[in-house]
Amino acid sequence: MGKVVTLGEIMLRFSTQAGNRFVQSDSLQAHYGGGEANVGISLANYGHEVVFASKVPDTTLGEAVRQHLWKYHVDTRYLLAGGKRLGTYYLETGIGERSASVIYDRAGSSFAEMEGLEWDLATLFNDVDIFHISGITPALSKSWQTMTLELIKQARKFGCKVSFDINYRSKLWSQKEAGQTIRQLLPYVDYCSAGKLDAVNLLGIANEPDDEEHEVAFYYEKMQKLFPNIQLFYSTKRTVHSASANQLIGTLWHNQQYYESAIHEIDPIVDRVGAGDAFAGGILHGMLEKMQPQAIVDFATAAAALKHTVYGDCNQFSKEEVADFLTCGSGKIMR
Amino acid sequence: MGKVVTLGEIMLRFSTQAGNRFVQSDSLQAHYGGGEANVGISLANYGHEVVFASKVPDTTLGEAVRQHLWKYHVDTRYLLAGGKRLGTYYLETGIGERSASVIYDRAGSSFAEMEGLEWDLATLFNDVDIFHISGITPALSKSWQTMTLELIKQARKFGCKVSFDINYRSKLWSQKEAGQTIRQLLPYVDYCSAGKLDAVNLLGIANEPDDEEHEVAFYYEKMQKLFPNIQLFYSTKRTVHSASANQLIGTLWHNQQYYESAIHEIDPIVDRVGAGDAFAGGILHGMLEKMQPQAIVDFATAAAALKHTVYGDCNQFSKEEVADFLTCGSGKIMR
Amino acid sequence: MGKVVTLGEIMLRFSTQAGNRFVQSDSLQAHYGGGEANVGISLANYGHEVVFASKVPDTTLGEAVRQHLWKYHVDTRYLLAGGKRLGTYYLETGIGERSASVIYDRAGSSFAEMEGLEWDLATLFNDVDIFHISGITPALSKSWQTMTLELIKQARKFGCKVSFDINYRSKLWSQKEAGQTIRQLLPYVDYCSAGKLDAVNLLGIANEPDDEEHEVAFYYEKMQKLFPNIQLFYSTKRTVHSASANQLIGTLWHNQQYYESAIHEIDPIVDRVGAGDAFAGGILHGMLEKMQPQAIVDFATAAAALKHTVYGDCNQFSKEEVADFLTCGSGKIMR
Amino acid sequence: MGKVVTLGEIMLRFSTQAGNRFVQSDSLQAHYGGGEANVGISLANYGHEVVFASKVPDTTLGEAVRQHLWKYHVDTRYLLAGGKRLGTYYLETGIGERSASVIYDRAGSSFAEMEGLEWDLATLFNDVDIFHISGITPALSKSWQTMTLELIKQARKFGCKVSFDINYRSKLWSQKEAGQTIRQLLPYVDYCSAGKLDAVNLLGIANEPDDEEHEVAFYYEKMQKLFPNIQLFYSTKRTVHSASANQLIGTLWHNQQYYESAIHEIDPIVDRVGAGDAFAGGILHGMLEKMQPQAIVDFATAAAALKHTVYGDCNQFSKEEVADFLTCGSGKIMR
Amino acid sequence: MGKVVTLGEIMLRFSTQAGNRFVQSDSLQAHYGGGEANVGISLANYGHEVVFASKVPDTTLGEAVRQHLWKYHVDTRYLLAGGKRLGTYYLETGIGERSASVIYDRAGSSFAEMEGLEWDLATLFNDVDIFHISGITPALSKSWQTMTLELIKQARKFGCKVSFDINYRSKLWSQKEAGQTIRQLLPYVDYCSAGKLDAVNLLGIANEPDDEEHEVAFYYEKMQKLFPNIQLFYSTKRTVHSASANQLIGTLWHNQQYYESAIHEIDPIVDRVGAGDAFAGGILHGMLEKMQPQAIVDFATAAAALKHTVYGDCNQFSKEEVADFLTCGSGKIMR
Amino acid sequence: MGKVVTLGEIMLRFSTQAGNRFVQSDSLQAHYGGGEANVGISLANYGHEVVFASKVPDTTLGEAVRQHLWKYHVDTRYLLAGGKRLGTYYLETGIGERSASVIYDRAGSSFAEMEGLEWDLATLFNDVDIFHISGITPALSKSWQTMTLELIKQARKFGCKVSFDINYRSKLWSQKEAGQTIRQLLPYVDYCSAGKLDAVNLLGIANEPDDEEHEVAFYYEKMQKLFPNIQLFYSTKRTVHSASANQLIGTLWHNQQYYESAIHEIDPIVDRVGAGDAFAGGILHGMLEKMQPQAIVDFATAAAALKHTVYGDCNQFSKEEVADFLTCGSGKIMR
Repeated sequence: MGKVVTLGEIMLRFSTQAGNRFVQSDSLQAHYGGGEANVGISLANYGHEVVFASKVPDTTLGEAVRQHLWKYHVDTRYLLAGGKRLGTYYLETGIGERSASVIYDRAGSSFAEMEGLEWDLATLFNDVDIFHISGITPALSKSWQTMTLELIKQARKFGCKVSFDINYRSKLWSQKEAGQTIRQLLPYVDYCSAGKLDAVNLLGIANEPDDEEHEVAFYYEKMQKLFPNIQLFYSTKRTVHSASANQLIGTLWHNQQYYESAIHEIDPIVDRVGAGDAFAGGILHGMLEKMQPQAIVDFATAAAALKHTVYGDCNQFSKEEVADFLTCGSGKIMR
Repeated sequence: MGKVVTLGEIMLRFSTQAGNRFVQSDSLQAHYGGGEANVGISLANYGHEVVFASKVPDTTLGEAVRQHLWKYHVDTRYLLAGGKRLGTYYLETGIGERSASVIYDRAGSSFAEMEGLEWDLATLFNDVDIFHISGITPALSKSWQTMTLELIKQARKFGCKVSFDINYRSKLWSQKEAGQTIRQLLPYVDYCSAGKLDAVNLLGIANEPDDEEHEVAFYYEKMQKLFPNIQLFYSTKRTVHSASANQLIGTLWHNQQYYESAIHEIDPIVDRVGAGDAFAGGILHGMLEKMQPQAIVDFATAAAALKHTVYGDCNQFSKEEVADFLTCGSGKIMR
Repeated sequence: MGKVVTLGEIMLRFSTQAGNRFVQSDSLQAHYGGGEANVGISLANYGHEVVFASKVPDTTLGEAVRQHLWKYHVDTRYLLAGGKRLGTYYLETGIGERSASVIYDRAGSSFAEMEGLEWDLATLFNDVDIFHISGITPALSKSWQTMTLELIKQARKFGCKVSFDINYRSKLWSQKEAGQTIRQLLPYVDYCSAGKLDAVNLLGIANEPDDEEHEVAFYYEKMQKLFPNIQLFYSTKRTVHSASANQLIGTLWHNQQYYESAIHEIDPIVDRVGAGDAFAGGILHGMLEKMQPQAIVDFATAAAALKHTVYGDCNQFSKEEVADFLTCGSGKIMR
Repeated sequence: MGKVVTLGEIMLRFSTQAGNRFVQSDSLQAHYGGGEANVGISLANYGHEVVFASKVPDTTLGEAVRQHLWKYHVDTRYLLAGGKRLGTYYLETGIGERSASVIYDRAGSSFAEMEGLEWDLATLFNDVDIFHISGITPALSKSWQTMTLELIKQARKFGCKVSFDINYRSKLWSQKEAGQTIRQLLPYVDYCSAGKLDAVNLLGIANEPDDEEHEVAFYYEKMQKLFPNIQLFYSTKRTVHSASANQLIGTLWHNQQYYESAIHEIDPIVDRVGAGDAFAGGILHGMLEKMQPQAIVDFATAAAALKHTVYGDCNQFSKEEVADFLTCGSGKIMR
Repeated sequence: MGKVVTLGEIMLRFSTQAGNRFVQSDSLQAHYGGGEANVGISLANYGHEVVFASKVPDTTLGEAVRQHLWKYHVDTRYLLAGGKRLGTYYLETGIGERSASVIYDRAGSSFAEMEGLEWDLATLFNDVDIFHISGITPALSKSWQTMTLELIKQARKFGCKVSFDINYRSKLWSQKEAGQTIRQLLPYVDYCSAGKLDAVNLLGIANEPDDEEHEVAFYYEKMQKLFPNIQLFYSTKRTVHSASANQLIGTLWHNQQYYESAIHEIDPIVDRVGAGDAFAGGILHGMLEKMQPQAIVDFATAAAALKHTVYGDCNQFSKEEVADFLTCGSGKIMR
Repeated sequence: MGKVVTLGEIMLRFSTQAGNRFVQSDSLQAHYGGGEANVGISLANYGHEVVFASKVPDTTLGEAVRQHLWKYHVDTRYLLAGGKRLGTYYLETGIGERSASVIYDRAGSSFAEMEGLEWDLATLFNDVDIFHISGITPALSKSWQTMTLELIKQARKFGCKVSFDINYRSKLWSQKEAGQTIRQLLPYVDYCSAGKLDAVNLLGIANEPDDEEHEVAFYYEKMQKLFPNIQLFYSTKRTVHSASANQLIGTLWHNQQYYESAIHEIDPIVDRVGAGDAFAGGILHGMLEKMQPQAIVDFATAAAALKHTVYGDCNQFSKEEVADFLTCGSGKIMR
C-alpha cells in the first residue's frame, strides 16, 4: 500500500431532493466534499495511507468536516483550523431533461484566503508516494497560483510523484489565466487528468476535425508532446442522455498507448458529483499497485460508475467491491 | 407584459409517494392546484399580471390556498372566502407499468356549489388581455354551465380574448352533455386547447382512418371550419411508454398552419399533474408576447416538459429558465 | 374461493433507501416477509381463506408479525409464539449498475430451531385445498428436512394439493444436500415452481446446449418425466438489464403443454423482493379458480410485475386490480 | 372473552406535524379512526371478538379502512362498501400554549348518507355481549336519529348490553336537538359515558355551585335518578395545562358508588385523539371481564393515558401491557 | 389598515433537527428570515400593506427569498437583485439543558456590501405610516451606519413614524461602536425596542441595584429622559428555564406609563428565532390600529408566544388568531 | 493526553421514533454502540488516544461499525473481523409515562462467541494508561468470564490502570453468577462504577434502612472496605419523573471522600442510551487529566447530561464544549 497526500478546498454542499427546486425545499441535503478530499477518501477506502491537507474554520462545521474525513480513515493532522468561513455551494439537483444547476458561495473561505503555505512541507511530504492537487486550487487566488507551483516543486523535491487534475471551472477564472498558470505547472507533473477541452482551450492545441472515435487519443498524444515529463494522461468520456442517464467511458494514455474501458450505461444517476474524483482515485490506486494500464482504466471507470449510485461526493467502495463489480456484471441481486 | 384573468376551481391534492399505495401510506403529500390556477401561476412566473378568481372556504385551508397563489405572485382579490368545503382528490402515484389512479372528492365544494357570479365582472375584466377558463367548470353543475357562458360573453364584451381548455373529464359529465355545452361556448372563444378525442367525441367530427402523422392537423382543420372565430388551437401529443416515461410533442394550429415542437423524452417523470396547464400557460405567454407560432409551440412544450421534473401542480420556471432549457439541451450540469 | 395453508419462516427485513449504503444509513426500512407468508397474503388478497403457520418469538416484534398478517386478512391461529428470536436479514438496495446485496441473520430463529411439528395437523389441514411450502424450510435444519417430508405426506393424506416452490438458496445448503432432500419431496408434490437451474443443479437433468427459445419447455418436460405426479410446473424468466430495470416473462407447464406470458419491461423497479412469491400466488389462484393455463400464467405474471412497483415483500393488489392491469396496458393515468 | 359490536362512522384524519401549520405543510399525516372503531380496536387488542359495522366507499380508500381494522383483528363483515365519499377531517396539531384546531369535512359521507339499516340485525347482534354506539351517529342526520333508536332497541331485544357514549359535538347539532334525541335513547342504555356538561346541557340537570371535589359524583347521581336503567356511568376529568401537558383522572359510577383512578400527568402528549375511546374501551373490557369497579377505572385510565403516547386514533396496547403499565410506574427503561 | 416599510437584511438559516448536532446531520432545515422581514410579514398577516426593501443576489436563491415574502403578501418591488451572495447562518438547535448555538456566515452579502441607497426614497416612503429598521443594519458596515441615519432622516422627512429595534449583536460590532451609532440614530426615532442591557451597555445608563420587579420600567424612564422624542419603548422579559422551556412577559412604556402582559409559559419551544420580531410586529400593529397600551402589549406578547410554536422565522398567525389565542386560554382542542 | 484501551461488544440498535410502537414503524433508526465503545468515543472526543478492541463480522455491517468508530477517531486496529453476526437489539422508545422497552437479539454474535483472546496483549496494552471493560462482557459466556479475568490481570501486568463498570444486566446472567464473577475481578480493578444495587445484590453488602441523603456514600464506603485496591468509585443517581424527564446527579468516592455534582433536570430526554457511558468517559478523562475530584464529578455529570440531548449512543461533545456547558448555564441561545 502507498502513502498519498492530497491538498485542496473542502466545501459544504447543499442540494435539493430530486424533483424539488430551491423554492420548494424546506430542507437541503448536506454533504462535505471537494475534489482532492474525494480522491483522498477513495484511496483510503482502497487501503492506502492518506493525508488530506486543507484549512477549515475553527467551528463545529469545521469539526464536522474533520469527522467526515475521519469516517473514511483519512489523516487530518494537516487540516488546519482557522480563517473565516467554510466554502459552500448549492446544487439544484437535475432530473430527466432538466439539468442540475449550481450556485457557488465559496469566496472568502478559510482555504481560499490563505496567503502562505502554513504546513511544514518537509514533514508533509516525507515518505509520500503521490501528491495530488487540482486546477481548482490555483483558480482561487493569485496567492494560490504561486503556492500551487511551490507545492508541486517541493513535492517533487521530496520525491513524490505529482498528480494534477486540471478540472477547469469557468466560473472561477478565464481560459487565458488558467492556461498560463497550468502551463507553468505541467512541467512538474507526473500524472495528469486532462481531456479534449483542456487541450484545446487551455493548452493551445488546435481543434481537430471531428472524428469522435479517435479524438481522445489524438489530444493525449499532442499533450504528451508538449509535456514529455507526464507519464500518464487520463479522463472520462461522458455522454449525457439526460440528467438521469449518462454513458461513461474511461480513457488512459500511458507509454504512447491509448486504453479505454468498457462502456457503462448509468441509469438512473443517484448523484454524479465526485464521479471524476472517483475515477482519479482509481487511476492513482492502479499506479500505486503497479497494475497494468488496461486494468487501471477498467478499475477506475468501475469506481466512477459506482460513485454515481450513492449520495454524497465520495466513493463508498472498497477495492474488493470495485473488483467484484467489474467481474459480476450489472444489477443482479446477491443472496 | 399582459394582464390575465383565470377562473376555476382549486383543489387540495393528496398523493402517495411513488412505490406506496394508499394502504401503505402513513402520510400523504399535499399540493394545491387546479387547471386555471396552474395556468395563472405559469403566466405570473413569466411576469404577467395575473388574477385568479375562485371560491374557497373561510378556513385555514382556504388561507393556505390563498398563500399558495401569493407565493407565485397571483392576485387573489377575486378569490372569495365562503361555502362549505375545499374540493380534494387523492392520487395514488403510478410508477413503471403501474398507472396512477385518482379518487375524486370534489362534490359540494365552495366553488362547485356557487349559484351566481359573485364577482363584479366590470372590474374583474377591466383592461384584461386574456380570460382563461376550462371545460371542467361547466362540468360542475347546471348553474356553472350557464355561468360559464355568461362569463365568456362578458369577457368578450369587456374586450378580453377568451382562452378555453376543453379538458373533458368523463367522471364529471357525459360526452353528450359536454358536447352540447361546449359547442355553445366555442363561438365565443379565441384560443382553444382541443385534441383529436375532443373533436370526435364532443364536436361530432368523423373519425378519420388512422394516419398518425397528420391526424392532429386534420382535426384542427375540421374544428377550424366549425368555429372560424377561433384563432388558435393547441394540444400535446403524449405517448405513454409507462407511468415513468412519456414522450411529449406540442402542436399548434394558427392561420391555417400546423406547427409541432421537437420531441421530448421525459424519463423519469416526477409529477405529470399540471403538465397540460404548463403547456397552455406557455401558449398564452407566446400570444401575449406576440411570438412566432413555431417559437410559441417550442416554448410551451419546453415548459410542459419542465413541469414533469418537479413535484406539485404548478410550473416553477421563469421565462428565462424555459428559454435556457430550449437552447441548452438536456441534462448537463451547470457549474 | 378456496382454502389454503402456507407454512414457513417469516423474517424482518432491514433495507437501505436506494442510493445509500449501510454506512450512510441512519435509518433502515423495516418490512416483514417470507416466501410462504407472501404467497399467503397474495391469495388472501384474491379472496381465498388463508392460514399461515409459523413460529415467532413472544415479543412485540412477534406481535408486529401477527398484525402484519392480519392487515392482509391472513389467519394466524397457527402462528405459534415462542422460541428465541425473529430471523432477520439486511438488504443494501441496488440501483442502476450496482446490485443489491444481502446479509442473512436468520440462524437461531424461533422457526428454524423447531424440533417437532407443534401444530395439530388434522385440524390444520382440515378441508384445505392447497398446502404451500418452499425449499427454504428443509434448508434450515436436519429436523426441518424430516418435518417437511412429514408435512407434505400428511397434507396429501388429508386431501390437500401440495404446492412446492424449490427456491434454492446456496447460502443455506449445498446443491448436493438440497438435491437429495428435494428429490425425496417431489413425489408428493402437485404444483411445483422450478426452473432450469433447479433441473440441472438439483434434479440431475443434463445441461442442454443453449437454445434459449425453447429451453424452459425442455427442462419442464424432463422434470415432468421424472415426476409424473406433478400437474404443474411454473417459473419466471428474468432478464436483468440493471438493478433498476428487468424484463420478466412467466412460464407454465401443464398437461404436456408449455405456456408463456407477454413480456413485462419493469423500469424502474421499486422493490423486487417477493416478486416470485407474487407469481406463485397468482398461479395458485388460477388453479383454485380453475382458470385456463394461458390465463393463469398471464394473471400470475401481471401480479409479479405489479409487485415490483410497491415497497415491501407482499403483493398489494386485489384480483380485480391485477385483471385491470392485464387489460388496461401500461402507465396511463386513471381519472 | 366477550363478543362486541360497535357501529359508527370511520374517517380519514389529516394532521400536521407538531410545529407546522397547514400553510407550512407539504405533507399531512393520514390516520383512520372514529369513536366506535377505536373502541372496537381497543377491545380486539384485549382479546375480545369484535365486529365493527359501518359503511365506506368502494374505493382503495375504503379498502385502506378495511385493512386498518384487519390489522387490529376487527371483523369487517359488516363494513359495507358503497356511497359517495369517506368522511375526513383536518387537525392542525397543537403544541404548548397553542391549541389544536379541527376542520371537519365529513358531510356527505357514505355512512352519514345512509337512509336505512342495511345490515341484518338478527345476525349482527347474534350472541353479542355488548353493542357500543355514540352520540355522534344520531347527530349525522334525521335518519340516523331514527336508526340509532332502532339499533339500540333491537340490540336489547337480541340480548346485548347497550353501551352509549354521549360524545356531544356542537359543530354537528344543537344542544336542544341533541338533548331531545339522547333523552329518547338513554332508557335503552346499560353503560353510559357522560360528564358534567352532558348532564347540564343535554339532560337538564341544574348546574351546581362549584365544588370541584365532588361534582362528578353529584352529576352521576342525578343522572342515575333520571335513568335508573343505566348500570354504569363513566368519564374522564381532563385538566389542560397546555396542548402538550394534560392531567387525566378517570371516574366511574356503579351501584350508587363513585370511583376515581390515580392521577396521570401526561407530558408530553404525542396524540390525544382517541383517548376517550381508549378509556371507554377499558371500561367495557372491565365489564366483560367482570372486574371490580376500582380495577376497571384504573385499567381504563391507564389505557387512556397510554393512548396519549402513540400516534393515531387507536390504542396500541394489549391488556397485559396496560396491566404492566399500571404496576410498573412511569417511564423506567425496561431492559 | 396602515402602510409600512421595513428594510434590512434577509438571510438563509440552516438549522439542525432538535436532538442532532451538525456532525450528525445529513440534511439541514432551510428557512429565510431577518428581523425586518419578519416584522414585515407579521404586519402583512394582520392586513397591513407592507413593503420590504433589501438586496439579494440575482440567483434562484434570491428568487426563493422573493417568493418567501410573496407567500405572506409582502411587496417586493424594493427587493433589489444583485451583489455577490445571500447571507446565511447555521443554527444548531438547542434542547433541554443544551443551548442552541449559531455560526454566522453573513459577511460579504449583497445587502451588507451595499455602498449607497439604491432605492428612490421619495417613492419608497410615499404615504407610508411606519418605517421599521433595526440595529443590525448599521452593524454591517461603516457605509450602513451612514445610510441608516440617512434612511431614518428621510423617512421622517416624508412623514413616516420611525420604528427602531436596537437588536444589539456582539458578534457584529463592539458596544462602543454600537453605542455611538445608535445614540446618533435615536433622536430620529418614534418607537424603540430596547431593554435593560441596551440601556446600560449602549446608552450609558447606570446599572441599578437589582430589583427585578421594577427594573424594566426604571430603564424605560431613564431612556425616555435621554430621548424625549421616543413615544414608545417596548421589549420582552425572557426567563430561560432551558432551551425547551421559557417564560415570556411583554413590556411597554408609553406616556410615562409602564405596561406588562400576562405571563406566558412556553413549553416546549418549537423555534424561538423571530419571537422578538413577532413581538415588534404586534406592537406596531397596535400602534397602527390605535389600540390601548395594555391591549397592545397583550396582543404583541401573545403573537410572540405563538411564534414559539411554529418552525421558521416568521409569525404565521392572523390578527383574529392572535386575538382568539388571547381570549381562549391555553391548549384546548378546538372541535 | 492519555492512551486508553476499551474492549467489549458493539451492537446495532434499532429504535422507533418517539410516539410510534414497532407495529407502527415502517422504518427504524439505526445506531451503533456498546458501553466500552461509547466510553472510548467520549475519551477520543476529549483528545485522548483510544483503541477499541472487539470483534465484528466481516460484512458491510462490520465495516459500518468500523467507520462509526473512525468518525470519532477511535483506533480500530484491534477490531477483529470474523464470526457469525453482529449483535443487535430493539428499542421501543419511551415517552412521557410510557417506558422504553428493549428486545435483545445479541446471542451468537461474533464477539460473544469468542473462545480465546485473539489479540496480542503485549502490543495491545503497550504504553496504555487505562484499560476499560464492563460487567457485560463476562456475562456473555463462561469463556468470557475466564477471558475477562485474564485481560484484567494482563492489563495490570503491563502497567495499565484497570477501569471496570459493573453494569449488571439481569437478562444476561443471575445475580449469583454475576456476584461470584465480579468479586473475582474487583481485586484487580482501580476505578469502578458501582451503585447501591450492585453493592447489595452482587457484593453482599447488607441493605441499609432508607436514608436517601447519605446512602450512596454509605455503600461506597462499604465497598471500599471490601476492595481497598479500588481508588475510585462512581455512579449516577437518576430520578425518573417520566421517560421524558429525569433528574441526574453524579457521585464519586475517592480517598474516603464523597463528592456529588450539581443537579441536572433533563427535560425533554432525546436519547438516554449511553448516558452512563458518557459519565464514565468523563470520570476517566478527569483521572487522566489529574483533575480534582469535585471537578471530575462535575465534568462527568455535565457530559452525561449533554448525552441525553443527542440521538445515538455516543457523546458528541469535546472537552471544551462540556466545560462551556458547565459554566454557561442552561439553554441560552449563543449568538
